[in-house]
Amino acid sequence: MSGYFQKELSEIKKRILTLGALVEKHIQMAAEALDKNDAALAGKVITGDYEVDEMEVKIEEECLKVLALYQPVAVDLRFLIAGIKINNELERIGDQAVNIAERVEIITRKKKPNFVFDYSVMVEKARNMLKMSLDSFVNLDLDLAMKVLALDDEVDFIQKKAYDKIKAAITFHTDSVGYLINFLLVSRHLERLADHATNIAEEVIYLVEGEIVRHGLKS
Amino acid sequence: MSGYFQKELSEIKKRILTLGALVEKHIQMAAEALDKNDAALAGKVITGDYEVDEMEVKIEEECLKVLALYQPVAVDLRFLIAGIKINNELERIGDQAVNIAERVEIITRKKKPNFVFDYSVMVEKARNMLKMSLDSFVNLDLDLAMKVLALDDEVDFIQKKAYDKIKAAITFHTDSVGYLINFLLVSRHLERLADHATNIAEEVIYLVEGEIVRHGLKS
Repeated sequence: MSGYFQKELSEIKKRILTLGALVEKHIQMAAEALDKNDAALAGKVITGDYEVDEMEVKIEEECLKVLALYQPVAVDLRFLIAGIKINNELERIGDQAVNIAERVEIITRKKKPNFVFDYSVMVEKARNMLKMSLDSFVNLDLDLAMKVLALDDEVDFIQKKAYDKIKAAITFHTDSVGYLINFLLVSRHLERLADHATNIAEEVIYLVEGEIVRHGLKS
Repeated sequence: MSGYFQKELSEIKKRILTLGALVEKHIQMAAEALDKNDAALAGKVITGDYEVDEMEVKIEEECLKVLALYQPVAVDLRFLIAGIKINNELERIGDQAVNIAERVEIITRKKKPNFVFDYSVMVEKARNMLKMSLDSFVNLDLDLAMKVLALDDEVDFIQKKAYDKIKAAITFHTDSVGYLINFLLVSRHLERLADHATNIAEEVIYLVEGEIVRHGLKS
């Protein structure tokens, strides 16, 4: 493939990383809003999502343009298709940050029972998964992609523990069911966020190994 | 494009419809298992998911093969990229059926409070959305795709009402929080299922209009 084509690929990689950095910022803001009970900060995540959506649309257009213009085959074709799918996952990670921010807006309006839940470990792991999955994509780093999969199991485990703790709190604070359910939902949004990062890592593994590891299948 | 290419496109459409029919069957089975408290039927949805995964992998391989072999441009390129993304959505709809089935397995093991929740309207709407979105794809029917978007708003509304009803039940049956939370999760799985059908319809609208309507943007 020509130098022009390689330049276009680099540009697409760069844009995907920029989108990745933006959604990571939104996760961080949503987590901080949750931690500090800050509805204004949560509102910024929600109103800022249009930027994520616009970037996703432009990256997909760019990928389609390059596909049509250079008609790549083999590994270059797979790379672009993976780019389209990863771009899509990033937009959905942005949606999960919005989901968390929406819960924060609800939580801050409600009467607060004596219940504190620390999401910091889960947030940190999910953010790391996002960063690692994108790094594995741009560097086609199989080992790093595999590490993301291992981290996802940890997040699932933490989510299950969170679920039990919040369930117990609901049984105890029966007058605050509407409040506490929001914490249950936040932990599910974080788990889904980690799932999307895992999807990115699986795309990378597929790309590198040239075979499909998704769903645990070997084709 | 050649007759061979058109034949390949027809074959891909046919396979996507076959996958759509399979995930629809799984939704139906999961809903019936929920309705009849049937753990064995739920188990069949869970173990049958490998078939969905295998079909998804094969369809994506087929799309990549056709892209590399015929190097289509313009509308044909967009159609194949849409096919890859729709295929991906179908696999995720299958995952939601599995999620519901897993809830049924948990529910049947728990002590049952005096609480009945009728999901039939929500299930019926979600199944219709899936069927309509796939029909809109194979016939490139813009009107039908727009109807799916309208139905999604209805499902969101029903989900919110379900949420309130289950929340009230949790406040009342405080000894059955662990049981009732599963109903909350089922209604969210159904909502997400409808979201995936909406994603399919949005792909179709994008394909037909040649501009991106996702995220409410006009490019």
